[in-house]
Amino acid sequence: MAQIKVPVVRNILQANDRLASENRNRFDEAGIFVVNLMSSPGAGKTSLLEKTIDALAARMGIAVIEGDLQSSCDAERIQKKGVQAVQINTDGGCHLDGNMIQIALDSLDLSQVDLLIIENVGNLVCPAEFNLGEHEKITMLSVAEGDDKPIKYPLIFQICSVLLVNKIDLLPYTDCDVAKIRQTSKQLNPAGKVFEISCRTGEGFGPWLSWIEEKVGEHRKIRAGAAVPPQADSH
Amino acid sequence: MAQIKVPVVRNILQANDRLASENRNRFDEAGIFVVNLMSSPGAGKTSLLEKTIDALAARMGIAVIEGDLQSSCDAERIQKKGVQAVQINTDGGCHLDGNMIQIALDSLDLSQVDLLIIENVGNLVCPAEFNLGEHEKITMLSVAEGDDKPIKYPLIFQICSVLLVNKIDLLPYTDCDVAKIRQTSKQLNPAGKVFEISCRTGEGFGPWLSWIEEKVGEHRKIRAGAAVPPQADSH
Repeated sequence: MAQIKVPVVRNILQANDRLASENRNRFDEAGIFVVNLMSSPGAGKTSLLEKTIDALAARMGIAVIEGDLQSSCDAERIQKKGVQAVQINTDGGCHLDGNMIQIALDSLDLSQVDLLIIENVGNLVCPAEFNLGEHEKITMLSVAEGDDKPIKYPLIFQICSVLLVNKIDLLPYTDCDVAKIRQTSKQLNPAGKVFEISCRTGEGFGPWLSWIEEKVGEHRKIRAGAAVPPQADSH
Repeated sequence: MAQIKVPVVRNILQANDRLASENRNRFDEAGIFVVNLMSSPGAGKTSLLEKTIDALAARMGIAVIEGDLQSSCDAERIQKKGVQAVQINTDGGCHLDGNMIQIALDSLDLSQVDLLIIENVGNLVCPAEFNLGEHEKITMLSVAEGDDKPIKYPLIFQICSVLLVNKIDLLPYTDCDVAKIRQTSKQLNPAGKVFEISCRTGEGFGPWLSWIEEKVGEHRKIRAGAAVPPQADSH
């Protein structure tokens, strides 16, 4: 009997990684620093963007890609801040992927951008598995979610460069122990940074903004390096 | 050339629905009322179970199936309450499905159970798409997540029988407008009930507990009806 090989995409994550890598090349050619911001629903991602844009938009070009199941309320909030914003609607899908970002990039003028923030779908599970081409993953946790989250959802705390512990203004009214969050996330991710913030009051924003500015500076240097005239390479 | 038909599971949700329907038959034969409890991470599902067990365990047999990525902390919390508890670890999977419940049921003595609560993985997206065989879906939302969640994650608010708005003790310290949650969830789901509660203070538990007791009573009657001796059917 004839043997027919059925072509199968054996690893959907592998296919995604290829697209993510293409995105990364595009970001690096443009010298843009790109972060993938992930959290549970309602941890405060969009509020973080609003406050970060307010603080930094005068000093750098900022663009935002918003991932949501079907609404456009978040992108509308961001557009009011006067920066470029694109809304991706996943049509019920639980995470962004490399392909969606590739399509969204066509709607942005990257030549005006130093910092691109991708706000993922609110979900502490699925987004952790899909690279988008970002340079750094940021995980955000609201203290109202409780201090057991790193133990219960370890992957997303393990892979992030920065953990933002948000809504610290609510600490007096919850049983959340931030020391426990720091300890358990450090076990998963010894090199990760932790910043405690309140998007409501602005408390703790200094170190977060400094980290962003430092990273943007590094990526501007990459762009400056790439801008060496072609004849420099021709002998 | 020989044509070979490759069997393909075309609709994974259809396959799941078959298993869910088998589970439902098993619940109905045993006269057990079964709920599927869904929410974002940290909305308060396990705290709800603890308080509900404290209030009702003297009056009915309660069992819990806990869904988590890999830890067993929630099932341990429930076992301390002296009721049957089974932990399902999804190994990173973002939702429970009918097959996982079928396997978990083999670890429970259903003859002692009137109420089975299935605590799904903390995720406001994926669990909404998978029936487990439950009689009612319960969605829980913490006021700390914000009042835009029904607009942003509509499916899980559309399909639930009951929406539990939890952590109302935090209302004075947030910008959350519960009237907006009621209004937008009612548009999605006109027949759904909404209970405002605080698992921390116990506020608002009366209507929730009454609803559970009423439903358990209805399902006990189904069991009593099914107990008609077999000879009644033999002529």
